[in-house]
Amino acid sequence: MKLIDRLFDRVSSHGHVCLGLDTDYTYLPEDFAAGFSSQGEAVYEFNRRIIDSTLDVVACYKVQIAYYEALGVQGIQAYAKTLSYLRGKGAIVIADVKRGDIAKTAEMYAVAHYSGDFEVDFITLSPYMGMETIAPFLPWIKDSRKGAFALVATSNPGASDIQGLICDGISVSEKVGEMISNIAEEYTGECGYSPLGAVVGCTNREQTARIRERLKNIFFLIPAYGAQGGKAQDVAAYLKDGNGGVVNSSRDILLACKSPAFEGMSFNEAARAECLRMRDDILQYC
Amino acid sequence: MKLIDRLFDRVSSHGHVCLGLDTDYTYLPEDFAAGFSSQGEAVYEFNRRIIDSTLDVVACYKVQIAYYEALGVQGIQAYAKTLSYLRGKGAIVIADVKRGDIAKTAEMYAVAHYSGDFEVDFITLSPYMGMETIAPFLPWIKDSRKGAFALVATSNPGASDIQGLICDGISVSEKVGEMISNIAEEYTGECGYSPLGAVVGCTNREQTARIRERLKNIFFLIPAYGAQGGKAQDVAAYLKDGNGGVVNSSRDILLACKSPAFEGMSFNEAARAECLRMRDDILQYC
Repeated sequence: MKLIDRLFDRVSSHGHVCLGLDTDYTYLPEDFAAGFSSQGEAVYEFNRRIIDSTLDVVACYKVQIAYYEALGVQGIQAYAKTLSYLRGKGAIVIADVKRGDIAKTAEMYAVAHYSGDFEVDFITLSPYMGMETIAPFLPWIKDSRKGAFALVATSNPGASDIQGLICDGISVSEKVGEMISNIAEEYTGECGYSPLGAVVGCTNREQTARIRERLKNIFFLIPAYGAQGGKAQDVAAYLKDGNGGVVNSSRDILLACKSPAFEGMSFNEAARAECLRMRDDILQYC
Repeated sequence: MKLIDRLFDRVSSHGHVCLGLDTDYTYLPEDFAAGFSSQGEAVYEFNRRIIDSTLDVVACYKVQIAYYEALGVQGIQAYAKTLSYLRGKGAIVIADVKRGDIAKTAEMYAVAHYSGDFEVDFITLSPYMGMETIAPFLPWIKDSRKGAFALVATSNPGASDIQGLICDGISVSEKVGEMISNIAEEYTGECGYSPLGAVVGCTNREQTARIRERLKNIFFLIPAYGAQGGKAQDVAAYLKDGNGGVVNSSRDILLACKSPAFEGMSFNEAARAECLRMRDDILQYC
């Protein structure tokens, strides 16, 4: 079965939650963290417990490499161990690396993130240098084994600086969406979506509806739920027939044990409870 | 002395060459590579010899992380060891990581690349998500210790996909250049340039002259010399008063021993010879 069809089916059966393992060492409960000889080891063990508690209630995981890089080489070791653990469990994994380079450099990134120590299923890509930033990943996408999500329309306030510029009557982000959609079409799976997807944030529902309408074949990675302000109604407008995307939440899940709603739970029990709450919150609008 | 003034002075005294350590394992001479127990160790030792041979004939080094990531954890260890060696030699180092994220994620990238195992002087940034991708690095830039080069106008054929779009009569890359220049102004050093610089490729000389004219306070990182087709006359138009930028070359230096011009030389002797040739090639037009 093609990767994108696997992800689509997974969303059908398990809901839309993409659990963001943006694991900052300071998120770890102090008494837990104290039991490890290195910060990297503590972060990996924290991730492992979160993963064990949530495997059956999420669609996939997204690992944000910045948090691991910040710990240096031991952080990268924790990153590789986390990915290896996820692969062993058969989880679908997105590496949020936002790579955006061309030619041989981009080919090296494909080798780095689609094979070896850092192998994942999907990576995120940043297209400022043009569609040449996407092309080197397409041979891996073509054989249905790997996928990518290109930044199209993010929802941070400053996104308007570039993505919001209007050229020939449409915004840069809409232009980029069209270019991605045209490339993506060739690789569409049986589910009607392409393994070349797009990162789209929650802004206003009018814009969301327009993006969904224009990019029919595009599976979305939607990162702005929860701590970043997106609501279930906002993301639901992106999901079309119900499962045209996954919705990421990181801090609200990793730090769920600090929420009054989950008082008395361990961090991994609380993470599971928050995943279930979020899953059902979104499903009611789909 | 502020970092940008150090780099400016270095260019005055040593020329414009930015040596790109985009070290692909396949670049290593076979008999040299055979002597090491791991690819990462071989890459590090190759880099070390290149550095020792070129320290007095280059302005700075640029390390492209993709080539190290492609070797997995051992590659990242080689990356960290290469940076550590360069720091020990007092070299000015640019990490070509093209990070482009916002908020806490970008803050973690600043920690990752401005301190610890991966500490360098400058990093490259990709601004598709807007000027929020730059802001988290400014506190480090403000105290004059660190710097960054934002992607503005690259010279790959596909750059026109986004950077070449025309909005309100000017291109996206010109808009981005203006935004970067406005932010950069506050940090200008005694040399008249800011430690927040820009990546600009060699396209046509008319565009080059226009970019130089518009971005007066911007120090340039110019990556398209040599293997990528840029000529000394093309890059000289960017250098204004003679030292408003550094010019990167990677493959032509790392693989110089395969050039008929340097026949019989070891790879590190040939790398030095190519740096000298390139340095003088550019200086004749400045």
